[in-house]
Amino acid sequence: MGTFAVTGSASGMGAAVTARLIADGHRVIGVDRQTADVVADLSTEAGRTEATRAVLDLADGHLDGAVMAAGLGPTPRKEHLVATVNFLGVRDLLTGWRPALEAAGGKAVVIGSNSSTTTPLVPRSAVRRLLAGDVDGAVRVMRRFGPAAGAFTYAASKIAVTRWARRAAVTRAWAGSGINLNVIAPGAVMTPMLRTQLQGQNAGQLRAFPIPTRRFGDPENIAAWIVMMLGPAAADMAGSMVVVDGGTDAHFRSDHWPAPVPLRSLARYGFRFLRHDAHVVD
Amino acid sequence: MGTFAVTGSASGMGAAVTARLIADGHRVIGVDRQTADVVADLSTEAGRTEATRAVLDLADGHLDGAVMAAGLGPTPRKEHLVATVNFLGVRDLLTGWRPALEAAGGKAVVIGSNSSTTTPLVPRSAVRRLLAGDVDGAVRVMRRFGPAAGAFTYAASKIAVTRWARRAAVTRAWAGSGINLNVIAPGAVMTPMLRTQLQGQNAGQLRAFPIPTRRFGDPENIAAWIVMMLGPAAADMAGSMVVVDGGTDAHFRSDHWPAPVPLRSLARYGFRFLRHDAHVVD
Repeated sequence: MGTFAVTGSASGMGAAVTARLIADGHRVIGVDRQTADVVADLSTEAGRTEATRAVLDLADGHLDGAVMAAGLGPTPRKEHLVATVNFLGVRDLLTGWRPALEAAGGKAVVIGSNSSTTTPLVPRSAVRRLLAGDVDGAVRVMRRFGPAAGAFTYAASKIAVTRWARRAAVTRAWAGSGINLNVIAPGAVMTPMLRTQLQGQNAGQLRAFPIPTRRFGDPENIAAWIVMMLGPAAADMAGSMVVVDGGTDAHFRSDHWPAPVPLRSLARYGFRFLRHDAHVVD
Repeated sequence: MGTFAVTGSASGMGAAVTARLIADGHRVIGVDRQTADVVADLSTEAGRTEATRAVLDLADGHLDGAVMAAGLGPTPRKEHLVATVNFLGVRDLLTGWRPALEAAGGKAVVIGSNSSTTTPLVPRSAVRRLLAGDVDGAVRVMRRFGPAAGAFTYAASKIAVTRWARRAAVTRAWAGSGINLNVIAPGAVMTPMLRTQLQGQNAGQLRAFPIPTRRFGDPENIAAWIVMMLGPAAADMAGSMVVVDGGTDAHFRSDHWPAPVPLRSLARYGFRFLRHDAHVVD
């Protein structure tokens, strides 16, 4: 059976997918701040470097899959921490693990969020700065928005990490090297994080947020989707965002996506069309 | 085990999912122009009405799932046929089957296409007309574009059917009634339709289209995703478009989606926020 790395393995969706993989007979190398094979703090560069290296050692350079479930929810006054863990905690580790995934023909799943499509007015310049690795700059932009900074930072971190994954997934280093990298975007899932939020001062706001299926997500269901995205049928999936959110994204954005390539993007489209490293080989 | 209706069951993805469901012990009621339990021509209103009724009779009013795989590829000079089968052939049948899906707590999967996000300049007015059921009007718009009419019609039919599904999926009649309706968007899949196209005059164009995984899709893989979308983990999915296209969508559109709710949509967002038929019930 395979060897899988799971960040955020100690609780919530990371714990659910860890349990599923172990039940299926796989080996899981868990990464978390406590109660994990690799104990690490992904909010520091040293912690990310050490976690990357420790997993590669334990996996002996072969990873059949990686699940990037470590992350923080919207947290007022913790903008720097949220942006760092949610974005750099995925980008840096996956970049370091890429050769081990290639060696095993592996697959990787990033936990995004439907906040990436259902949050209004997230500043685009913050997303751009995150993608450039400039967390300080992104947080400076976000803090201009006062009480909205927490929600904006969370949404921007999830947009940035999804965009990073979509950009990377289709390159020669990933899809072209037999690695399938994709994103799952849950809505509110019944995890310890949500339970805490439902007891906090924003509980009313959380309950007012529309979910057409009229239930919070089940961590076991999300784990089943992640396992599917780590399995053989994902060989034909690259750079996709699989939204499993009870319908909130479609409730707010049904007409915004899918959409045709617009006129202003035609030059880029033509350029991308001519890239000759992404054609079928017989 | 369950009873499932599959349109386009005689070939391609419809046949692959039919075989999978039968192998898993389910009963499939196939709908196709030939070699099917229900032989029907979905390009005529009488054919669609008759197919809807015949399946309901055979299923005794209980459907655990429906897979809408009947459809035509881009076909020059057949714009009316393509638009009718690809859009009305899904909308009319699913609308008729909805009560049977509700009776069984069923799930439905529409076969969209990554053409809905990777085709440039598809006329929005054609999509709007299709959504209003005005196939004649949509085709008139498309024919103005001469040689592009075939590609535009195919893409517009897939945008329209995906948008229709996303709009319907989150309503009280679907998600609110326990039915999970979602869309799968494959790229080029190795089906009889693609094999024919690869021997035709547009073979060069087809092979030039970027696919980062460097392979055409495997119908068995697509069938596995559809079966997943018909299974218990799909209870938390509504109105999603699951792209399984080897990365072409991400190759062209990585930065276009996900995207925050823009300023111009803020009024609609607020209105949708206040809809009180889509909140969690304890």
